[in-house]
Formats: sequence, C-alpha cells, structure tokens
Amino acid sequence: MDAFRLHQHLIGQQGSRRSLNTPVLVIDLDTMDANIAALAAFARQHGKNLRPHSKTHKSPEIARRQIAAGALGICCAKLGEAEAMVDHSIPGVLITSPVVTPQGIERLIALNSRSMDLMQTVDNADNVAALDKAAAEAFTRLSVVVDIDPGMHRTGVSDDGEVIRLARQINRAKHLSFAGVQFYSGRLQHVEDFAERRKSVEVETARLKRLVQELCDAGLPPSIVTGSGTGTHGIDAAQSVFTEWQCGSYIFMDVQYEAVDLRGNKVSPFAQSLFVDTTVISANTSGMATADAGLKAFSTDGPMPVIAQGAPAGSSYRFFGDEYGAVALPPGKELKIGAWLSCQPPHCDPTVNLYDAYHIVKGDTLIDIWPIVGRGLSR
Amino acid sequence: MDAFRLHQHLIGQQGSRRSLNTPVLVIDLDTMDANIAALAAFARQHGKNLRPHSKTHKSPEIARRQIAAGALGICCAKLGEAEAMVDHSIPGVLITSPVVTPQGIERLIALNSRSMDLMQTVDNADNVAALDKAAAEAFTRLSVVVDIDPGMHRTGVSDDGEVIRLARQINRAKHLSFAGVQFYSGRLQHVEDFAERRKSVEVETARLKRLVQELCDAGLPPSIVTGSGTGTHGIDAAQSVFTEWQCGSYIFMDVQYEAVDLRGNKVSPFAQSLFVDTTVISANTSGMATADAGLKAFSTDGPMPVIAQGAPAGSSYRFFGDEYGAVALPPGKELKIGAWLSCQPPHCDPTVNLYDAYHIVKGDTLIDIWPIVGRGLSR
Repeated sequence: MDAFRLHQHLIGQQGSRRSLNTPVLVIDLDTMDANIAALAAFARQHGKNLRPHSKTHKSPEIARRQIAAGALGICCAKLGEAEAMVDHSIPGVLITSPVVTPQGIERLIALNSRSMDLMQTVDNADNVAALDKAAAEAFTRLSVVVDIDPGMHRTGVSDDGEVIRLARQINRAKHLSFAGVQFYSGRLQHVEDFAERRKSVEVETARLKRLVQELCDAGLPPSIVTGSGTGTHGIDAAQSVFTEWQCGSYIFMDVQYEAVDLRGNKVSPFAQSLFVDTTVISANTSGMATADAGLKAFSTDGPMPVIAQGAPAGSSYRFFGDEYGAVALPPGKELKIGAWLSCQPPHCDPTVNLYDAYHIVKGDTLIDIWPIVGRGLSR
Repeated sequence: MDAFRLHQHLIGQQGSRRSLNTPVLVIDLDTMDANIAALAAFARQHGKNLRPHSKTHKSPEIARRQIAAGALGICCAKLGEAEAMVDHSIPGVLITSPVVTPQGIERLIALNSRSMDLMQTVDNADNVAALDKAAAEAFTRLSVVVDIDPGMHRTGVSDDGEVIRLARQINRAKHLSFAGVQFYSGRLQHVEDFAERRKSVEVETARLKRLVQELCDAGLPPSIVTGSGTGTHGIDAAQSVFTEWQCGSYIFMDVQYEAVDLRGNKVSPFAQSLFVDTTVISANTSGMATADAGLKAFSTDGPMPVIAQGAPAGSSYRFFGDEYGAVALPPGKELKIGAWLSCQPPHCDPTVNLYDAYHIVKGDTLIDIWPIVGRGLSR
C-alpha cells in the first residue's frame, strides 16, 4: 500500500507521527527549513550563489523551497533525476555527471528543449562532439560545463591543457555554449578536522584559480565556477574563485556529517532534520530488542544509525539483517514490543534513495506526505 | 522516466540489452528458471515442500513461477510486501516477522479477509492476545505460526517452555488457528564451509526436533515446520523435521552465496541470474575507468560487485561514491567512455530493493520488463 493510501488520513492529527507504519522516513520541517535558511544567509553573506545538489533529496517540493530561499536552481547527479525535476517545473538544472551513450544523449537533447537553463557537464572531447552533433540535429543549443578532476580521478579532466582545449572546442561548436567549469572535491567533504580540510582545499583551489585565469586569458571566461559541498563550503567561503556552491546534505545532515567540524568552531550551523522511525517487534532476550528497520531501511556504506528518541540513554542500534535492527540496551533497561524509536540515518543520500515518500512532521504531528519523485532514477 | 516508458520499445529487439539506460537491474530468464526448477526438483526428491521467501524478489511474476514449479505459496518478510503480493492474487502467504502495532494488526486482519491461506508468525503472548481480539472484532479467524529463536536472538521465542505455552494459548484462542512453527537459522546461511555449517545445523535442529515432539505430546502437532534457506537447505534435506523450506536467494544468487559450498561438493546447483549493467562515463586516468553504478545501484553491506562481462580479465570494481563505481584495469588495458559492463551484485535482496523494475533478458535481448511491486514496502 503506498504511503498516501496508508497515511493520508493521519495528516493534521495531533501526535500522528507515532501512529505511522514503520520503518518510515520523516522530515522535521521546521529544522529543514532552518537549515535551508542558514545556508542561504551564509552564502549571501559571502557573495556566493547556491545551486544545491538535489541528489540528496530527489524532491521537487524541497527544490522549490531552496529556490524560494534564493538558489539559482539545482544540481542533479543523473539524467533520470534531471528529467523528474524538469517534469515538475524546476528551473536551472545542472547535470553533474557526463551523459555519454547514444540513448542518453537523445534524452538529454529532448530534456534541454523542454527545460529552462539546463546545463550539462563534460570531460571528454568525443563526448563534446557527440553532444554538438545531437544538438545540431535537433536544431537546438546546449549549455555545457567543463568538469575538472580535482585529483580524485572520478570524473573530470585531469590534464590542465585539456581543460582549455575542451573549453575552446565547446566555444567553437555551433550548437553548444561554454557555460563554465565544475570543480567538486568529493573526497574532502568528510575530512573531519577543519584545519586539515582547509589545507587540502587551499592546495586544490590554487590550481582551480590558475585554470580559471588561463581560461580568461584565452578569451573563454567561465560564467559559472561551480563546486563545494556541505563539508567544504565553510572554507570555500574565503575563496574568491567559486561563483556558486553545490551543497546538498546540509538540509538533512546525518551521522557522517555530524562528525565533521563544518565551520572550524565545533558548532554545526545545521541540525538533524531527517529521521527513520522504527518499532520494536520482538523482545524475548534480556539486554536487547529487535526493531523493524534493517539493511533495507538505512544506508549501509557508513557508520551505524544513532538512536535520537525512544530508547533509554546509552542504547545503541546495529543492523540485524535485511529487515531488522538490534537495539542494545543498558543494564536493567528494557523495551517492549510496540515501542517507538527514531534514528538519525548514517548517510542521508542513500537512505533517502530507499523510500518512496517523505513523511513531513511538525513536532509529533504528520502534516504532509511528499513523494520522492527522483528515487531510483540514477539512470 | 519510468522503466516502461523508457525501455518498452526495446522489447524483442535483438541485442537490445546493450541499449538500456544504466544502471539497470537485469534477470537472465533462462538461468533464473533453471534455478527455480533445480530447487523444486531437489525439494521434491527429499519430500519437502517449498514456500520460497519473496523478500528476495518482491515480484508477483516470480512468485507465480515458483508456485507453478510446485511451491505451496511464498513467504513475505513484512506486512507491506504481503499486501502487495495478495493484491496480485498470490496465495499461501506466510508473514515471517511479527506484526505488533495497532495499525499493523488492523491491516493484517483486513489482509487476512481478502487472502487465501494467510499465516502470521508470533513470538509474544501479548501479541497473540491482540491478534485474537482483532480477529474476533472482524468476525474472522487468523492462522498463526510460533516463531522459535534458533539462538540468534533476532525474532522468535527463546525459552522452550514458552514455545509450548504460546502454542497452547493460540490453540485456545477462539479466533486464531495454531498452524505450526518457524525456525530460521539466519546466521548459519552464509557459513561458507559445508562441514562447519552442517555441524551447527545439527545442533540447532536437535532442539527443534525435541520441541516438535513436545508439541505433539501436548496435543498440538504443528501442521507446518518451516525454515531453512539457500545456505542450509542442502543440509536440512537430511533432517526429517522441516515440512517446508523458505529459500529465497537461490533464484538469483550473488557474490556472498557464490562463496558458500551449498551441497558439500563445491558445485553450486544454482547459477547467477541477476546482474547490474553499467556504463563507463569517464576515462581520463590511466589504469582505471569510472562507471555509472555506485552506492545507489548495489547493496553495500557485503563485498564489492564482481564484473561478469565487458571488462578485460583481471579488472575489478569498487564503489566510488553514491553515483559511481571505479573499474581498476590490468596494466596496458583501457575502457573508453560508453563501454558496457555487467556486474554480479554483492547481496541480492538489498540490491533488488533499490530498483523499480527487472529488465528480463534472453541472451542479449530484452524480452520483458517486470515491476518490483513490493519494493520499499518494508513497513
């Protein structure tokens, strides 16, 4: 039964969060809105634009809130997510991964025709030629951003000379526009110590600054220089080079990001707004209880979930197979079947990708249900 | 764009598997059907019934194939999955986790009224009382199976005396029927060495045999004794106590189960039928390439995916963030952008839970698309 059929009747009922069928993905709306406002204010203060990464939330509803707070648009990791966002009238989409197959390029060109201000990243000359050819055949023009590899070797151009050559190729191509460069230091986002992270950011960004200068010297000034994330934006604020930031996780936070000193003062500007609520379904062994949220309810690429509400202090959560979690209880404590717990997810993006809907709460009251329309659309 | 809109036009086109937008979840149909037939024949040969666990596939289409091959019905891990299966006319559903909340019990009783031969497991006396009360209020009768904890302490009754007391309580309850016992040795399924696994199974099963005898002595003979899995069925075949098996993963297999010696002869009776196909989207660094399947395309609770097709011998795959995988290449080899790869998933159940549809192939031709209707319905 889908989330709407199952839970729509609970919307607006005082305390209805506790009556949701679990496991369920919950957003504390006031906290999320405060996170959106906090980053918007910080970016404004530092003269930066925001194009938040929607791979975190995959929700047009949240994208609209980010744009209402001043964002230029959103980033999408994959073409399928971008299609979902454009189909829900979200403007200013930047696709941050290359689209290289014939079938993908066909979809991209079709999407470009029905979207406002779409941009696509590239890191390969053959791909640039293929995009130009496809845009020409559709009598259209595509905005293209050169992705620069900051040294992680995941996507992006590694060779400095090739960055300039690719920008020049795009600029010459009749059906492409050179929109700027992307430089996303993915591996630095979760470096927990601020000073260590800052040092690495400064080294990587020095190269970016030089490349941007070379592009300007070559008559190819980038309109946008896009990058940064929740982990590095507090450092990138002091760098003049970025015109816009891609932060995504700040709206929700998670166990991983809670460990990162975001602003160098050990005070997080963002609070946890995303939770997985779960229920104890078995309690026959002293010192523990079994809840209904397991490997299919949380991301499993990081640490364990952390219990935020519902268990005695000192309790901990660990995975207990596909369908279950084990709650370890402090001596003398117990949880009975039916007990309600709320957990902080280990890693927000892949946790969200497991659910079809957000259950939106204020306090303990369900106030809305939002579909996660981009879920599973990584293709 | 959903899988059907995106790919329906490719059904029946020779070689169309290579034109699917990736990452994509693929079933090699002939191999899956051979796996279904192989376990059906083995179970028949050993006088065992099958009620395969559908938490692996979440697909009525596959459930129907298992039933057509002789299965009594299917197991479901959670109520939400059971609703999806019953709504697609699948009979003989056993729900293998307790349903304990008022809202869950209400759904269970409603489901019982519209399903054929539904059974629900229990491990708690208060829960038995609540189920009886709810069934009474709906003027219906619910079949109940006592879950016995084999020592893993996940779900099930740990205390032997309590098993008998619970069966007696169910038998006395006017609106419940005592259907039998469940005994699922989850932690033994992946013990790789056959002799070691057999030793543990024999110890655990000796207790089960004694409990079944005690139930018979108490005038409460269990109609079904359900348990076993892909990892232990080759051992349980020699045990007289089980009447039916719950094996699930055998239809697909995965990297984890491939390491398990299932029959003690190092020859697997099942072959890999489930794959994640992916595409190289970036190739700017010598010795490696970046593909489009990452943490959102595979389970991450086990080993790394294994490349089955498309890469030079000696290549390996590792996760490279939410959206990407890194292919490490042997010296002197390369993969260009657009290159197609197919991977064996690390753990089949949570991998399936990431996708909305199976793409069914024979050889390299797409022949059908099946929705994964139970996906995400762990509530």
